[in-house]
Amino acid sequence: MFTKPKLKIIPLGGLGEIGKNMTVMEYEDDIIIVDAGLMFPGEEMLGIDLVIPDISYLEDKKDKVRGIVITHGHEDHIGALPYILSQINVPVYATKLTQGLISVKLKEHRTRVEAKLHVVPPGEQVILGKFRVEFFPVCHSIPDSTGLIIYTPAGIVVHSGDFKLDYTPVDGKPTDLVRLAQLGAQGVMLLLSDSTYAELPGYTPSEMVVGESLDRIMAESAGRVIVTTFSSLISRVQQVINSAAKYGRRVFIVGRSMNDTSHMAMDLGYLNVPEGILGRIEELHGLPHNKVCLITTGSQGEPTSALVRMLNRDNRQVHVIKGDTVILSATPVPGNEALVNRTVDTLFKRGAEVFYDRVAPVHVHGHASQEELKLLMNLVRPKYFVPVHGEYRHLTFHAKLAEAVGIPKENIFILGDGDILEISSDSARITGKINIEDIYVDGLSVGDIGDLELHNRRIMSRDGIVVAIIALNKDTGKPVGLPDIVSRGFVDSVEAKDLLEKSRHILAGAMGTTGGNGSEGINNVNIRETLKNFFYEQTHRHPMILPVIFKV
Amino acid sequence: MFTKPKLKIIPLGGLGEIGKNMTVMEYEDDIIIVDAGLMFPGEEMLGIDLVIPDISYLEDKKDKVRGIVITHGHEDHIGALPYILSQINVPVYATKLTQGLISVKLKEHRTRVEAKLHVVPPGEQVILGKFRVEFFPVCHSIPDSTGLIIYTPAGIVVHSGDFKLDYTPVDGKPTDLVRLAQLGAQGVMLLLSDSTYAELPGYTPSEMVVGESLDRIMAESAGRVIVTTFSSLISRVQQVINSAAKYGRRVFIVGRSMNDTSHMAMDLGYLNVPEGILGRIEELHGLPHNKVCLITTGSQGEPTSALVRMLNRDNRQVHVIKGDTVILSATPVPGNEALVNRTVDTLFKRGAEVFYDRVAPVHVHGHASQEELKLLMNLVRPKYFVPVHGEYRHLTFHAKLAEAVGIPKENIFILGDGDILEISSDSARITGKINIEDIYVDGLSVGDIGDLELHNRRIMSRDGIVVAIIALNKDTGKPVGLPDIVSRGFVDSVEAKDLLEKSRHILAGAMGTTGGNGSEGINNVNIRETLKNFFYEQTHRHPMILPVIFKV
Repeated sequence: MFTKPKLKIIPLGGLGEIGKNMTVMEYEDDIIIVDAGLMFPGEEMLGIDLVIPDISYLEDKKDKVRGIVITHGHEDHIGALPYILSQINVPVYATKLTQGLISVKLKEHRTRVEAKLHVVPPGEQVILGKFRVEFFPVCHSIPDSTGLIIYTPAGIVVHSGDFKLDYTPVDGKPTDLVRLAQLGAQGVMLLLSDSTYAELPGYTPSEMVVGESLDRIMAESAGRVIVTTFSSLISRVQQVINSAAKYGRRVFIVGRSMNDTSHMAMDLGYLNVPEGILGRIEELHGLPHNKVCLITTGSQGEPTSALVRMLNRDNRQVHVIKGDTVILSATPVPGNEALVNRTVDTLFKRGAEVFYDRVAPVHVHGHASQEELKLLMNLVRPKYFVPVHGEYRHLTFHAKLAEAVGIPKENIFILGDGDILEISSDSARITGKINIEDIYVDGLSVGDIGDLELHNRRIMSRDGIVVAIIALNKDTGKPVGLPDIVSRGFVDSVEAKDLLEKSRHILAGAMGTTGGNGSEGINNVNIRETLKNFFYEQTHRHPMILPVIFKV
Repeated sequence: MFTKPKLKIIPLGGLGEIGKNMTVMEYEDDIIIVDAGLMFPGEEMLGIDLVIPDISYLEDKKDKVRGIVITHGHEDHIGALPYILSQINVPVYATKLTQGLISVKLKEHRTRVEAKLHVVPPGEQVILGKFRVEFFPVCHSIPDSTGLIIYTPAGIVVHSGDFKLDYTPVDGKPTDLVRLAQLGAQGVMLLLSDSTYAELPGYTPSEMVVGESLDRIMAESAGRVIVTTFSSLISRVQQVINSAAKYGRRVFIVGRSMNDTSHMAMDLGYLNVPEGILGRIEELHGLPHNKVCLITTGSQGEPTSALVRMLNRDNRQVHVIKGDTVILSATPVPGNEALVNRTVDTLFKRGAEVFYDRVAPVHVHGHASQEELKLLMNLVRPKYFVPVHGEYRHLTFHAKLAEAVGIPKENIFILGDGDILEISSDSARITGKINIEDIYVDGLSVGDIGDLELHNRRIMSRDGIVVAIIALNKDTGKPVGLPDIVSRGFVDSVEAKDLLEKSRHILAGAMGTTGGNGSEGINNVNIRETLKNFFYEQTHRHPMILPVIFKV
């Protein structure tokens, strides 16, 4: 019996979590990878810098990988590239601005690999083995974002990338709905679509709303206007420049990352600055305050951002002063709420006027809400549907929307990372699951920190550590003198001097009574138990106990 | 020259932060305290259980304190009582339900002090030295909430407590606007008012909105309905019971804290349960699913809550199963977002239908929004105004609202914890500031954990610890053998075996070359520097380095 080979879709990251987006598409001897993003660590991942996708599935298939196709230049889609390319150095395809951002990133990492970067303009195609990939323009919170039309021998796959519909986008390039409708008429086998905001009813507002707020604030503020946003939100930077120009304010870009990205975007033609608007920071102090606009990072309250440094008098050129108006043009990324709140509080304390998402329409997000998601499905009319990019509840909501627009329930697949979906024009099913782990980047190393070290960090973060140092006579095995006890992060060592002193005697007593010759009972387990019980009884804390035994 | 004594208002907590509300009011030799709340620790307060107000100001004034007046029974208003009463055991005045909650709390803490608790019905007054305090009913997310009218020789002070306006509250007891209007006519010197939601425009919706949602869900769900909320949100529990009764569902209360609080509220008459509605958990399994409603805690995704246990198959009586409908009738407390998201994801994975604040009107909060705050000021017409309860930005917004309704700017005081406001009917000014610290409760002890221990915990939480054990010859002072290196939470000790081994030699080498006789250069600072530099160079991590030197 002859069966036509199927297309395999395997998400390696991004399903069930926000970030580290990466999807493998495999057809016979050809593999393409869509996106290679990182994830910022959750609160419980103590000390971890980044999380990247687990590509061990590709280990023995490296020669089949035809390329990595990137939808847009955000960290959660490009951030893992330096790590991935050092393991599989295949060509990378993306639009011009996205490649610009990738180059900046690879340079920062000083990777030794010579990356093969190819620019693909929106609307054009590349052939990657049996795959033909067309990039189509979509609106998102970074210019030059694309979705993908992937022609495969099994059928046409549409991947939305991160997208929203905006009929009046800042760069004048709306999502190409006509192209999608054409495909819908032609017949699409599978749609993978962005679920990030599938919880939200209605439509995401146009960026135009933000432009209007900026205009009003630039017009009405008597002092300087300081706008903070993500450096990658180039369309927002464009809006700030437009609005400042309209109201006669010179624009000063403050901070390294905002400068790097803005200048790259200017060089590539994605940021248009009218003649004479941009100022050098040295010119700032000669200008009346109502002729000044500053653009910088810090919308997340990051302690190292330019805004927070300006606030803490830690920036050499600018400090936030009474009379300034500060706009946080971004929503707090989940986990950053407390930092953002603290920053807003400090701004108010310094006498600044502050605008942020809860009190003024100074930000719109970059993802489609429910009605837009339904519109996309109406245009593309896929036979099969896989919600991508989102935590499980987002995927669930998106699947429900798909059902609501008439896609049969059995044709909708909520996948998790590692699930293998095998699909052709007449059937689709999950045929297996590969084992996927979070790969932690901590300092210079990738993947060496595992659950044990995180567990240890967690214990020490809560109750500190107690080191018990025990000297045994090398001949008799009996303790020599009292054990020493040193602690860090457990108790105030001055206030709790008596407690620590007492613990030495408790431990000595326990060691004296255990074991015949005094030695066999003296082991790490006994020492730990003795101290653990004593300290818990005395303090209700559970420090890590680290026994150090040596013979003298 | 004779000056009339002034009233001193000193916030000891709750201004510039959410929680640990406590205000001192002092007139000559009489002091009263309003509220004694706790604050849940911020992310940066590693391992800390609670934060309570600093009452060192009262240390030498204990005999002047006439009593503690409590506005309502939430943790941020009563939670510090067990700690405060063990230091100043003065009478506590509150309404009946609030006293019920205080009693439960004191019992939990097994405090040895015999608390003097006095019930004051709303509308009644108590005399506390030169203060006369009247409790007036307000709406909030717990029944029996009150504001305070405090008659002082300097003038009348109104304290709103935590409040909102709800013309259709669940318990039928709206905020007493008439009483406030009478006072406004009479002349109020100072209003202290709740700022928690001063950022929000408009009006807070009535609890009725939630009742309607509950009705719809109870009516339409084919399976069991599980409602989670705070155990103290007794009016919500009442709404769930009402709605379940209406649609013929038996109600089962699951979990210790929900049971304790609900039964206390029933005993005191604050929760009315129709005959035959409440079921014992043993009866649960005989009932058809559409005749069942469960009420429990877990709306914050707390790992120890009944809901999360039911979800993790860790509850002996009930597990969440496919077909259940789960309602999270609460907003995530800031900092709990990630836990709540994870819980919602797991509920969806188990096949439950889930309703939560972002997707359905299943919760309204308990604080006044901007229009309500303005209405209160319009009725009370205070001469002076102090916004209370809130982070700095909330206080700032509230102060702006006060200006907008016509209170002169110079009569509005944004205080911080410790500020001393001296006030009389014809003048008010900040005359000083007492030093206020966060008092941390960690396990059994109060106040012993300081910044140093938190700093140590932070370092270990990020990069772990390295203990370096060095034996020196007691006669020559020279190192005996290679030093030992033990680490926890720093690197994988198997994977990084070579690194750790190498560090022993690096350290030995450094010790060999320092100092004349090999001993004077061997000190903690040198050891730390050597290892710090070596490990940073190799890993880009900064573990805590703990040298242990002993002589043999």
